[in-house]
Amino acid sequence: MKKVIKNGTIVTASDTFVADVLVENGKIAMIAKNLPSEGMEVIDAEGCYIFPGGIDPHTHLEMPFGGTVSRDDFETGTIAAAFGGTTTVIDFCLTDKGIPLKNSIETWHNKSKDKAVIDYSFHLMIGEINEEVMKEIPQVIEEEGITSFKVFMAYKNVLQADDETLFKTLVMAKEQGALVMVHAENGDVIDFLTKKALEEGKTDPIYHGLTRPPELEGEATGRACMMTGLADSQLYVVHVSCQEAAEKIAEARSKGYQVYGETCPQYLVLDQSEMERPDFEGAKYVWSPPLREKKHQEPLWNALKSGQLQTLGSDQCSFDFKGQKDLGKGDFTKIPNGGPFIEDRFSVLFSEGVKKGRITLNQFVDIVSTRSAKLFGLFPEKGTIAVGSDADLVIFDPTKERTISAQTHHMAVDYNAFEGMKITGEPVSVLSRGEFVIKDKTFVGELGKGRYIKRKRFNAEGQKQLAALSK
Amino acid sequence: MKKVIKNGTIVTASDTFVADVLVENGKIAMIAKNLPSEGMEVIDAEGCYIFPGGIDPHTHLEMPFGGTVSRDDFETGTIAAAFGGTTTVIDFCLTDKGIPLKNSIETWHNKSKDKAVIDYSFHLMIGEINEEVMKEIPQVIEEEGITSFKVFMAYKNVLQADDETLFKTLVMAKEQGALVMVHAENGDVIDFLTKKALEEGKTDPIYHGLTRPPELEGEATGRACMMTGLADSQLYVVHVSCQEAAEKIAEARSKGYQVYGETCPQYLVLDQSEMERPDFEGAKYVWSPPLREKKHQEPLWNALKSGQLQTLGSDQCSFDFKGQKDLGKGDFTKIPNGGPFIEDRFSVLFSEGVKKGRITLNQFVDIVSTRSAKLFGLFPEKGTIAVGSDADLVIFDPTKERTISAQTHHMAVDYNAFEGMKITGEPVSVLSRGEFVIKDKTFVGELGKGRYIKRKRFNAEGQKQLAALSK
Amino acid sequence: MKKVIKNGTIVTASDTFVADVLVENGKIAMIAKNLPSEGMEVIDAEGCYIFPGGIDPHTHLEMPFGGTVSRDDFETGTIAAAFGGTTTVIDFCLTDKGIPLKNSIETWHNKSKDKAVIDYSFHLMIGEINEEVMKEIPQVIEEEGITSFKVFMAYKNVLQADDETLFKTLVMAKEQGALVMVHAENGDVIDFLTKKALEEGKTDPIYHGLTRPPELEGEATGRACMMTGLADSQLYVVHVSCQEAAEKIAEARSKGYQVYGETCPQYLVLDQSEMERPDFEGAKYVWSPPLREKKHQEPLWNALKSGQLQTLGSDQCSFDFKGQKDLGKGDFTKIPNGGPFIEDRFSVLFSEGVKKGRITLNQFVDIVSTRSAKLFGLFPEKGTIAVGSDADLVIFDPTKERTISAQTHHMAVDYNAFEGMKITGEPVSVLSRGEFVIKDKTFVGELGKGRYIKRKRFNAEGQKQLAALSK
Amino acid sequence: MKKVIKNGTIVTASDTFVADVLVENGKIAMIAKNLPSEGMEVIDAEGCYIFPGGIDPHTHLEMPFGGTVSRDDFETGTIAAAFGGTTTVIDFCLTDKGIPLKNSIETWHNKSKDKAVIDYSFHLMIGEINEEVMKEIPQVIEEEGITSFKVFMAYKNVLQADDETLFKTLVMAKEQGALVMVHAENGDVIDFLTKKALEEGKTDPIYHGLTRPPELEGEATGRACMMTGLADSQLYVVHVSCQEAAEKIAEARSKGYQVYGETCPQYLVLDQSEMERPDFEGAKYVWSPPLREKKHQEPLWNALKSGQLQTLGSDQCSFDFKGQKDLGKGDFTKIPNGGPFIEDRFSVLFSEGVKKGRITLNQFVDIVSTRSAKLFGLFPEKGTIAVGSDADLVIFDPTKERTISAQTHHMAVDYNAFEGMKITGEPVSVLSRGEFVIKDKTFVGELGKGRYIKRKRFNAEGQKQLAALSK
Repeated sequence: MKKVIKNGTIVTASDTFVADVLVENGKIAMIAKNLPSEGMEVIDAEGCYIFPGGIDPHTHLEMPFGGTVSRDDFETGTIAAAFGGTTTVIDFCLTDKGIPLKNSIETWHNKSKDKAVIDYSFHLMIGEINEEVMKEIPQVIEEEGITSFKVFMAYKNVLQADDETLFKTLVMAKEQGALVMVHAENGDVIDFLTKKALEEGKTDPIYHGLTRPPELEGEATGRACMMTGLADSQLYVVHVSCQEAAEKIAEARSKGYQVYGETCPQYLVLDQSEMERPDFEGAKYVWSPPLREKKHQEPLWNALKSGQLQTLGSDQCSFDFKGQKDLGKGDFTKIPNGGPFIEDRFSVLFSEGVKKGRITLNQFVDIVSTRSAKLFGLFPEKGTIAVGSDADLVIFDPTKERTISAQTHHMAVDYNAFEGMKITGEPVSVLSRGEFVIKDKTFVGELGKGRYIKRKRFNAEGQKQLAALSK
Repeated sequence: MKKVIKNGTIVTASDTFVADVLVENGKIAMIAKNLPSEGMEVIDAEGCYIFPGGIDPHTHLEMPFGGTVSRDDFETGTIAAAFGGTTTVIDFCLTDKGIPLKNSIETWHNKSKDKAVIDYSFHLMIGEINEEVMKEIPQVIEEEGITSFKVFMAYKNVLQADDETLFKTLVMAKEQGALVMVHAENGDVIDFLTKKALEEGKTDPIYHGLTRPPELEGEATGRACMMTGLADSQLYVVHVSCQEAAEKIAEARSKGYQVYGETCPQYLVLDQSEMERPDFEGAKYVWSPPLREKKHQEPLWNALKSGQLQTLGSDQCSFDFKGQKDLGKGDFTKIPNGGPFIEDRFSVLFSEGVKKGRITLNQFVDIVSTRSAKLFGLFPEKGTIAVGSDADLVIFDPTKERTISAQTHHMAVDYNAFEGMKITGEPVSVLSRGEFVIKDKTFVGELGKGRYIKRKRFNAEGQKQLAALSK
Repeated sequence: MKKVIKNGTIVTASDTFVADVLVENGKIAMIAKNLPSEGMEVIDAEGCYIFPGGIDPHTHLEMPFGGTVSRDDFETGTIAAAFGGTTTVIDFCLTDKGIPLKNSIETWHNKSKDKAVIDYSFHLMIGEINEEVMKEIPQVIEEEGITSFKVFMAYKNVLQADDETLFKTLVMAKEQGALVMVHAENGDVIDFLTKKALEEGKTDPIYHGLTRPPELEGEATGRACMMTGLADSQLYVVHVSCQEAAEKIAEARSKGYQVYGETCPQYLVLDQSEMERPDFEGAKYVWSPPLREKKHQEPLWNALKSGQLQTLGSDQCSFDFKGQKDLGKGDFTKIPNGGPFIEDRFSVLFSEGVKKGRITLNQFVDIVSTRSAKLFGLFPEKGTIAVGSDADLVIFDPTKERTISAQTHHMAVDYNAFEGMKITGEPVSVLSRGEFVIKDKTFVGELGKGRYIKRKRFNAEGQKQLAALSK
Repeated sequence: MKKVIKNGTIVTASDTFVADVLVENGKIAMIAKNLPSEGMEVIDAEGCYIFPGGIDPHTHLEMPFGGTVSRDDFETGTIAAAFGGTTTVIDFCLTDKGIPLKNSIETWHNKSKDKAVIDYSFHLMIGEINEEVMKEIPQVIEEEGITSFKVFMAYKNVLQADDETLFKTLVMAKEQGALVMVHAENGDVIDFLTKKALEEGKTDPIYHGLTRPPELEGEATGRACMMTGLADSQLYVVHVSCQEAAEKIAEARSKGYQVYGETCPQYLVLDQSEMERPDFEGAKYVWSPPLREKKHQEPLWNALKSGQLQTLGSDQCSFDFKGQKDLGKGDFTKIPNGGPFIEDRFSVLFSEGVKKGRITLNQFVDIVSTRSAKLFGLFPEKGTIAVGSDADLVIFDPTKERTISAQTHHMAVDYNAFEGMKITGEPVSVLSRGEFVIKDKTFVGELGKGRYIKRKRFNAEGQKQLAALSK
């Protein structure tokens, strides 16, 4: 059945205008004023914004970490995402050295396929580059539509790759039209500092932060950027948390390097002092990179505003305070790293960004949806409201005030890092390919209805356009 | 009569998709695939892009300068603009100290009203800030819809204002919601260097360039940015020509300052050596800031690509080589400053930018149209293809190859600064508020049909959006 | 009579060693261990440092300002300087537009000649550059040995020169082998901000600081540096007070520009909060540039340590709190600008710099004496301890602790800006050209014994050395 | 027998003056004009400079590399050094993982003890930090007086250490009062690029340069600086060859980090094009970091001039063109890395630096001698001309012109990298601890007379001075 969404204010990365939207076969079919609606389902969006569904480019659902597994899986995670206005997530598929990539991908398919209520895709971790891996990658790109590969510069002896691996990945990415993602912190120095802290009896959560100073993130970010320029490749720096890293990205971009940066809502509104909460509650705020001193927030906002950072990821990787985070009592290195942000990413950016005048409405859409679609090969099916695009839509009431709380959130985890924060604006209804997942703030979706999306190569759209020119 | 443009590839600052566009009452009424077209004028755009009409934020038509008057007026200038894909120009209205602002504006209305074939608006020069000026400005904004004011930091004893005037203008702009524009070169030092050059018998056109080194533009740009930050105001730097200036803008933006930068096609593709052409032909390439060494081009492209420069102006101010430029034979300071770019601005950026892979199609639209509309209070009527916007449209064949030449251009001036340059892509038809001005490469418009546009205050749209949120 | 100073630790800008020094005819005649001393005056310096006498490159003695005159003149000022370990001062000779430079110099000679107890010289202010001035300058250099010229970028309508004057001065300096000094603050913006503050009823001393933000000093410093590079000339930035200005100097130096920077003890150890003292006592801390937020101190120390700032001036310009500073009650712009630092400059740098491990002993000597001698054409007669140099020497007990106070200082002014500060290290005896001025902390000098010093041209010594090479 | 050097112009890092010097027991005993000289050996230095003997902080004598051994050993190397004006060398003692440090040091003592004609000392390479190494280091410092330790960030799988080792070394250095030295190039990326070049058949010497681009040196330098700041330790970056690296050092110093930088004469006067010489002669110019494009020379000179680089090392590591360099025919990675500079370091800096007006005479002495003495614990015995210092002296004729050539040099190697370069200034006689090694351009020294020097800890002199203050 066709749907018409009437009288909403449509917002894209570029435009803001009042019009009706006709949805047909899961796609946006028509945009106009006063569309006829006989025989169609009519949705009244007056007074609301219609946004393209949020794209969360950075989640870790049901991910093993330090002997436990992140609490939210593809069921609770994607339901919470949908409540929050997100209609696509790209989850990180971990790999192990010596194991074929396709086995890891298979594992991830098994985690997700019967659970996801919205569309999803995978990034793939690269832990080593050898002949086998090089042989498999073109298949992964072709068959699985996985076109982004992540390298860790931290987590020594666990996930960390050396510079040679990172550089090889960058060279491969250039050849294959893929995008390299990097967790940029200097893992060697962190390893030393954490061991030293433990030796000195510094075991509280705050030492997680103090042993990963921002200089180490700035350095690794600069290093990865330099390599990208040298390889003439493309890089996406995940979870930029500090001024040092944002500056390195801006510097690289001013040289014309294809470098992009993501920050996360937690770095924009929380700070290091959270890790000092008593009764081990600081552990709720332990993730990597850690929360920084408050002075880093303004440079991050400025980087979003001026376009030097492009996207907002949640870095969702939730662990219960009781039973998971407390594994690290007496030893902060044993606290599972991560927090619950998949649900509030979208609204926090709206409330703190748009409502407080830091970014425009169009920038909001770009940051929370469009740019991720473009960078990760999902555009134009995802990430915008245009004729022919998927009807992944959020009907958003910008005047609604509410308080974030674990009492009311939809994630499975037992706390919320933004607990008590008052925000303005709330998704009322959310559609995925034209079907309601959330309707009037109620979940009406279906487990397993979310589709796995094979993504295009980096800049494939741009290349198609250029090809068109030379016909 | 309604028009339907069929099967074109619609391109906005954000989106690229194939659809039909329905034009009604000069506005875009509907966007969809396979629109019914009975009883309507059908325009086939298959294989073509449909761009929002270009906005040229920087022209000097029929402008007095050094005892002569710029060659192209609102007739030839706007016709040439339309041929080139531009549907709105914002011209600089000069003022004189001691003369009421409204008199100057009246003069400009008289120059334009019966001639313009496309829509237009005015910026206003501020030469001094005194009580009278301060009294008049709110009227100018309210009644004339002039919301951008230009201050010159160069042209000593002619146009140049001192730092106090610039700062006062910035403070006024903050209070009034206006945008300050600045010509940023250190006029004092230029004045010294030009006098010295003449004393030393250095009278050829190249000395125009050598007496205005890029350091002087970088310095003045940095000074204006600093003042903007201090005044918490907003600044638009016109005709950024060199790396030094681009860096200062990027630096200011990273601090969160509201600073924007415009470059011009001439700085992207021509260089200082043009001024060394024999037989006084260097004079054809004399304007301010001057053409720079070739090494400045890449940083300018990078700044466009990374979003640190936002717009492309033509700085159209044409003078015939014979009869005007030659006033400066034997004394380069007497060469009228300026060149003819209004016609080629759009296509040169497409060919050198999009076609050569330096910027994306969407960035092209943003730079050549959308951002100027947003910065100067023309959005969303101008600058995009969205339901409700003016049907200012360019149907553009991206595969057409041609050679720029004074033989074939439509400007009145007797030479073309891009003479002989081979470019790809050409506007086929151009509509202004739904009416053809150019149809199949032929001018079909009418003198005086272009309307004067009263513009909104800076960020008025954004403020309206924010206001909506707190209802 | 010959003097032998025995067993002291001689410290120069490069060396530290224990030896005896033979003084003969006012010069250093011999350096060795165990010098024979029969028939000579023997001074025991065991446990003490022997430093070259301090050179204060920046004083304003008996200077008219805002309807009053600075309190310390060449008598009290040079006596206090000597107590503090300074044996040469270079005072600023003000000029007036339209008055021959030599008249102003004559005035300054009259102020000083019968009063000074240590050697002294003059810098000359340049308020305008016209034909008369250009004619007089070579005479001033030749006959008066004045080889440094100061331009003010602030104090609008009083001392401020425009950029053309500054640039002309730089060009002149290059031709004449002179050094340009600059007071770098943007006077136009300050003028606006101060008027605005007064209009808003903000009349307290703190508004002196708040209307001269550091951005304005950074900007003006960068502007002067740029001009220096363009003119291929040489620049000395006086009283650098903030990070912004220090960074601009470092940047210029990294480009190879001949730019030098001076800071003052007050900026290293005091901060903006002093101007908030109650009962109008904030006025004691009013000078320009103003004291800055505390965070600026570390960058200034780092710049001294890393060699990006070269000298320490006192900027002595003292006014009594009662009867002078209080002219500004109810209007901070009427507070005479300046403070009393001539006496404590040397010891504060030793105590806060050397004693606290921020700079080495040799750097201390370089900063407080040697570099000023080299930059201002006084070397090697002044500024070092070497055979043939003037015996301007300070015997300094590095272990002595004392508290700075107006109760005990030797300046004529009624307060001390460092009141209550505990410092380590004190000059015990001070010799000027081999004669005691201070002996065992007692003044034993004679009014008028200080000589006026004609200085060499900038880098004259270096040029002489180079000339020697090509013989 | 006492010696008197008469009428020379004594030059130190701070002073330049004409005086006589009395040398007694190998030490400088007295400095004065017109010293009595009866019964003493009189050396006439009229018209000559007397410099403190050069200190070469960076040599590789008789060093194994890639299956061969560097051609100059402690005999020919130190003789050539002495001819060139150098009286102390600090050679790098290589170590092997798993072998006690003292064994390596013993090896180095055996290489040097019967051969050196001037004084010498050792730096020690750190390849790994484990418990054994940590136990040995205090002994090495205490017993051997080795207080500087070098870490390689390049030469993957050979010398390269990881970041953890570098950081541990920095932490150790802070605790022990040692100075960390670093070869800063990103070895991982170089390894990839060299393998790739070979695979592509790019085997000529120029590919040595092209596979080690300056970005890799800049990155590694910045990384090491960041770690130094974080560890609050001290770092000396050897052989800075490019603008990128110099900028990183300046940036670190402006933050107050204790970072020092050394460049080498080859980077100041030669450029990348040398590696393109035909007939495999490019191999003569193969060392690491490689020669850079000419545009890097000026920033290096500026960094020396402004004090952001402190020292000049030779990085002497000579290999014969025939029989050694040609091991790399057909595979540039097999060309032994290094060149012959120990003899010309001193004179090239004088001729290109002082004579061409880029640095002053005093800066020359500081760079070529004094700062190395201070940084490496040799001061004040070495590095200056002061009473009590070793009589390591160079009598230098600044007017002598000559042409550098392998025909006339004293190194054992069969070519000279500066072949044909015309320079001004030449050491006439050289004394080591008061004894002639070179007399009137003739070697008069004796093998084995050079002493091994145990060095003080980093900043030991400064700490002593500070200690004195608190007595």
